[in-house]
Order: sequence, then structure tokens, then C-alpha cells
Amino acid sequence: MKYSYITHLECPKCGKTYEENRIQQLCQCGSPLLVRYDLEKVKETINREDMKNRPNTLWRYHELLPVHHQENVVSLGEGMTPLKKLPYLGADYGLNNLYMKDEGIIPTGSFKTRGASVGISKAKELGVKHLAMPTNGNAGAAWALYAAKANIKATIVMPLDAPEITRKEVYIAGGDLYLINGLISDAGKVVGSLVQEQGVYDASTLKEPYRIEGKKTMGYEIVEQLGWKVPDVILYPTGGGVGIIGIYKAILELQQLGWIEQGKLPRLVAVQAEGCAPIVEAWKKGEKESVFFENSTTCAFGINVPKALGDFLVLEGIYATKGCAIAVSEEALLEAQKLVASLEGNFICPEGAATFAAVKTLREQGWIREDEHVVCLNTGLGLKYPETVEIEDVETLQPGQQILIKN
Amino acid sequence: MKYSYITHLECPKCGKTYEENRIQQLCQCGSPLLVRYDLEKVKETINREDMKNRPNTLWRYHELLPVHHQENVVSLGEGMTPLKKLPYLGADYGLNNLYMKDEGIIPTGSFKTRGASVGISKAKELGVKHLAMPTNGNAGAAWALYAAKANIKATIVMPLDAPEITRKEVYIAGGDLYLINGLISDAGKVVGSLVQEQGVYDASTLKEPYRIEGKKTMGYEIVEQLGWKVPDVILYPTGGGVGIIGIYKAILELQQLGWIEQGKLPRLVAVQAEGCAPIVEAWKKGEKESVFFENSTTCAFGINVPKALGDFLVLEGIYATKGCAIAVSEEALLEAQKLVASLEGNFICPEGAATFAAVKTLREQGWIREDEHVVCLNTGLGLKYPETVEIEDVETLQPGQQILIKN
Repeated sequence: MKYSYITHLECPKCGKTYEENRIQQLCQCGSPLLVRYDLEKVKETINREDMKNRPNTLWRYHELLPVHHQENVVSLGEGMTPLKKLPYLGADYGLNNLYMKDEGIIPTGSFKTRGASVGISKAKELGVKHLAMPTNGNAGAAWALYAAKANIKATIVMPLDAPEITRKEVYIAGGDLYLINGLISDAGKVVGSLVQEQGVYDASTLKEPYRIEGKKTMGYEIVEQLGWKVPDVILYPTGGGVGIIGIYKAILELQQLGWIEQGKLPRLVAVQAEGCAPIVEAWKKGEKESVFFENSTTCAFGINVPKALGDFLVLEGIYATKGCAIAVSEEALLEAQKLVASLEGNFICPEGAATFAAVKTLREQGWIREDEHVVCLNTGLGLKYPETVEIEDVETLQPGQQILIKN
Repeated sequence: MKYSYITHLECPKCGKTYEENRIQQLCQCGSPLLVRYDLEKVKETINREDMKNRPNTLWRYHELLPVHHQENVVSLGEGMTPLKKLPYLGADYGLNNLYMKDEGIIPTGSFKTRGASVGISKAKELGVKHLAMPTNGNAGAAWALYAAKANIKATIVMPLDAPEITRKEVYIAGGDLYLINGLISDAGKVVGSLVQEQGVYDASTLKEPYRIEGKKTMGYEIVEQLGWKVPDVILYPTGGGVGIIGIYKAILELQQLGWIEQGKLPRLVAVQAEGCAPIVEAWKKGEKESVFFENSTTCAFGINVPKALGDFLVLEGIYATKGCAIAVSEEALLEAQKLVASLEGNFICPEGAATFAAVKTLREQGWIREDEHVVCLNTGLGLKYPETVEIEDVETLQPGQQILIKN
């Protein structure tokens, strides 16, 4: 019994394969690489019932993850986040089976942790001593913290506008932090020259092949938590799109393993903000790739990605599953954020809130039906975005003063 | 098979008993009440192996919790937080078995969630429509969010100095929020008159008997996660002290159930800040109760409690387990916070950091021995305390500028 059944890396664009036991970044053709496993061997070796007695982290699926030796696993207890049924919000939207996969309940408070745990573990196994990445905040924070535990130096470049708390996470982890007076694409150029000229490991989104493997575990977990049933619809706030790529990959792998019903795919919905909707624009036109979205802006900072390297994989996942792409307004997502808190008691991040705003619209349009099983991905804690909540009309008392309750 | 084996409430001071099927607050003698169960029946009905197949929330222990009917349970997926071994920090401190129970990985990002989930669930079962509480921030946030889900009105009074993010949590939950230009004791007086004059349910610490029951599950989990073994030492950041009271109660209950070795108790350590150390002062003098600590101050806001209602129960737990009480400086706790992040990748709250600062001192003094199993309770996320991290010397780049790595 091996810890991992990884076999090689494969380019989804040109089909070229690569060895996985040394550092690989993009394919020669410029495409991200995907990790492949000996799924037949996995099928012979374990079955889905074995998962019951596994630890409650994403490493429960270790045979389907890329790390060969357990001692290289860098874990802070990430994964198996709650999948919660939301009865009150469901009633409000006219849905009987609305769920939230709550990625706020994870170390670093964001789903970026999954990519960091798997990505850093594999980097450690490959002997990486120094990595660099551009970030809109949460990913950099997660990678810096996991890198600290792995004793890998992490150079993190983030826009001045990224959530301030994420700077502090990088800083307290002892990361090598730089701010940039620009966008994540500007940060990406800085990292690019660092990688080229100084031989640093490039941990940019999809430029290393392993964070997808961390993110795909969200797909495994949703299905396992639903009793190995595939939901009808999964909505995902889409910036770089790694989660949607990962979830799609997870579902296909589970089908090959025979752990879920053959043929049924969840309709994957890419949710974006109106202020940054390149995937939505491409999907509307039936395109296979997106175009750089000029002057992008949204308070949901994690999905302010004007052009994603993996856009073609995101669009492939949407088309193949008969999903869709939809953009929501800032007002709609902030309203959804309030509604989730006041009806269901969850203070979620604006990116996660966007998926609920999208559900509302898609239900009104009849694209989602009343009895369908619908999973919204909340990608992180509202706590990391204090500026999305503006307090109005709160009274300040002096000691000794009393409250008169108006009913 | 009943969902709960609760039988009654009991005063730990005068022994008077109370019915649990109606609203009860303090004992007539002024003491908090403790919840009692038919442990013999529980022992006949279930055993510790049954826990394996239970959901990963604190409700896995429902027979030992006070809610009769499962439909009254208000849950956001709280509990079974990670118990992590910290090898690098352990090596630094000269400890082979140092653990952190990480209460940051829980809805609302703080251990207060446990008390809120059990307290609100029982309040719902008892028909409460409106509650009020004073808070240093995290408890109010948790109770407001769970109250929202339970459709109970929550009036929350917090000092102006409480962490700002917690105001926003109360606000977005739709809570009835008041700020006060004073301390939590001033907030307590405001709530007191609201309760007396307007018949609102008093959810103040220990004035309702059920939050202890939520907190005690930390004790159950630590023991279960260690394979039903009791650790040698548990360190707990002590403000109101409900956690230490709860953990002590949990250990005694597990002994009565025969689920753990008879006789062995973990040495319980109450950790306070030098700026607010009433329990430490009392323990040093061998007193049974503490004295109000004048002009208290610490950045670890959650343990800025100058006089705790349950102080006598905290001290009893320390004496009975041969534990101790120790105060740490602000510098020491902030240093520990950095060390945990840079060695172990966890950004913890200052209250949790205080327990690590205490471990360092107690190890140096020989009070903790090299091979002992030591559990530090991190009570919440560092993310909720951005002001504890001050960033120095970070460079801001202009687009196109490059980084030169100095090795």
C-alpha cells in the first residue's frame, strides 16, 4: 500500500507528460499541468467506506494526493469543513435543499489553505527552499504560514489594496513581504523576474501543479458529506478558478473510481462580480478563453482577477457540466452577506456571499428548480473583510445609563 | 434511548437543587448552577467507542449535554477542533509532547462559540424570545450569531475598547448592539437592570447554567483525541474561567463514566496577564475567592476580567488537580504569538499566546517536565486581533520594479 498513487503530470492542452519527482512549472506550451494517478490501483486498494475511519483533514484522501511520504505532509488540521443545510435562507429563496460548504472553518480562515497545505507539502518533498508568489491576500497568507512550518522561505508580493489582515499574517509568519502599488498582475510580473533571474520556485496560481490537488478535495468532501451523492448544482466564486477546476477534476476521478454514480455531473456555476467578469463575458459568447477585463473592481477582492491563467479549464468545466457563469452586483452580494448572517448565523466573506446572490437570481429565472440540491461555496471568513460591514446608528452608553427596549 | 440524560441543576456552593425544564439563572445564594446528568444511565446506554461514528461537532456528546430534543439544537458545525502536536515549538521549549487545542478553527473564530451553541439551543428549548449579555466582544459575537439562527432577539452590550470586528459580527447578525464607555463590569450593570426591570433572559457568563456545558466539551475532545488518555497539564487563558470550570467538570464526568483511568487528573493551569491577574493573586495566597483587580489592562482583551463570578470554581479546579496560576507579561505573550506563527504556522490570538508564554516559564522552572503531555488552549483566531501585529520595514514597489533577494 502506497501513501500516494501519483504517476505523472499531464498537459490538458497539448497532452505532453512530465515526471512528477522533480520540479515542474508550466508545460512548454504555456498551459498549467494536471496531476495524474493510477486510479485503477487506487480502486483495487481502497474503497469509499475506508474513509469513515480516516482523520478529519483533507489528507484522508492521501492516495489521491501527490505527496509520497507522510513525513512531508505539512498539516494544520485543514479540511472536512462543515457542509451545512440552510433551511431559513432556502425558504427565502424558494429552495428545499440549499447547502453551504463553509471554508471559513479552516486554518487561516480561507479555502486557500487547501492549496497551501498540498502545495507546500509537495514543495517540501521536492526539496524547495525558497518560493515566491503574487497574491490578492488570502493565498499569500496561507502559503506564508504553511511555508513557515515547512521551513521554506516565502517571498510574497501583494497589492496595497489587498485586505490588510493578510499582510499581517504573512508578516507574523516571518514571510518576506512586499507590497505593490498596482494589481495582482503587476505583482505577478515582479515574481516572474525573480523566478527567471534567481531560480526561486514559482508558486503562482497554476504555475505549480499541486494547489489544484488541494482544492479538488472540496469536491471529494461535498460528495462524501452528501453520502456519496453528487449535488445538482455547485456555485463557486471565480477569480483564478482553481476551485472550479479542482472540483470538476474531483468528480471525474470519483467516477473513474466508481465511488459515485456514473454520468451524473453537478452543473458548475462560476460566479463573478459585475466589476470583474471575464469568465462570464467569455461564457456568454461561447468562447473557450477569456479576455483581460479592463479596470476591474469589486469589494470581493479574491475574485478581482482580470484574466485567469486557467480560464480555458474553468470554461471547459462549465460547458461539460451544462453549468453557467453569472455576474452579481456589489449591492446584491452585500445584501446576501447580511441575509446569511441574520437568518443562518454565518458571517461569510463577500466572495462567498456572491454565490448566494447568484442562487437568488438563478432560482428566480427558473434555472435552479425548487427541489434541486444546491451547494454554495463560502470561500472564507467574513472576519477577514471588516470593511464590508458598515455599522449605522449604534448608541454609546455612559456607565450607569440604562437601555429601554422598544418592542 | 434519550437524546439527553440531564436530570437537574445543582448549586456547587450550598447544594440546593433546581428543575432544569424551566428558566433558572443563579442560585438563591448567588452562586452559578451546575448541570447534573444521570451518568449511571449514560454508562449503561453508550460507551466511548460509540463516539467514533458520531458527527464531528460537539453535539457528538449529546447524551451529556442539556438539550432534550434534537430539533432544538442550533449548530453551525462547532467543535472537534484540531488538537495539534507542535514539534518545533516543543523543541524550542524543551518539551517532547506539546500540543495546541486550536479553538480558532470553529464558527465565529473563538471558543465562545461552544457556549453559544449549547446556551442558545437550551434557551430555544426553554422558549426564550429575548436575551441580553455584557461581553468583551467574542462571546457577544457568538451569541448574537447563534441567536439570529434561533430567531431569538439578542441585546449585546460591549465596551468601546472591545475588538472592533466583534461589533460588526453582532451588527451583521441583526443583534441589538450597544457600546459602553467603560468596562465589562459596567456593561454587566446595564444588562442587570434590563433583566430585572424588563424580564429579559440573562445570558451573562455563568448567570445561565448552560454555557459551561458547551465549554466542557473541550475537555471531552482533548481526552478523546489523545485516545481517551488524560494529558499531564492543560493550560487555559483565564478571564471568566468558564473553560477551566468546564474542563474540570468534563474530566470528573468521564471518570464517573469509566471512560478514562480513575484518579488521574490533568494539572490545570490558569494563565492570566500581569495586567489582570486576580486568580493568580488569590492562588498565591491560597484563597478560595479572588479580589477585584483594580485598573486592569492587557492586549489580550478576552482575559481582562477583574473579578470572575465563578472564581471559586476556578480555584477549586486548580487546587484539586495540583495545578497552578501564573501571570505573563505583554511582551512575553506577544513574543510567544510570533514564535507559534513562525515555527508552527498558526496565527493565534493573544489569549492563546499567553498559555505558551506560561509553558516556557513553567518548563524553565521545572514545574513541567520534558516528557509530560502538555495541552495549551488557543481560544481563538489571531485574525480577530489585527492590532497585536505591527508591521515594520516593508517595502512598497512600483509596477515594473524588481526585488533583489539577499540571502
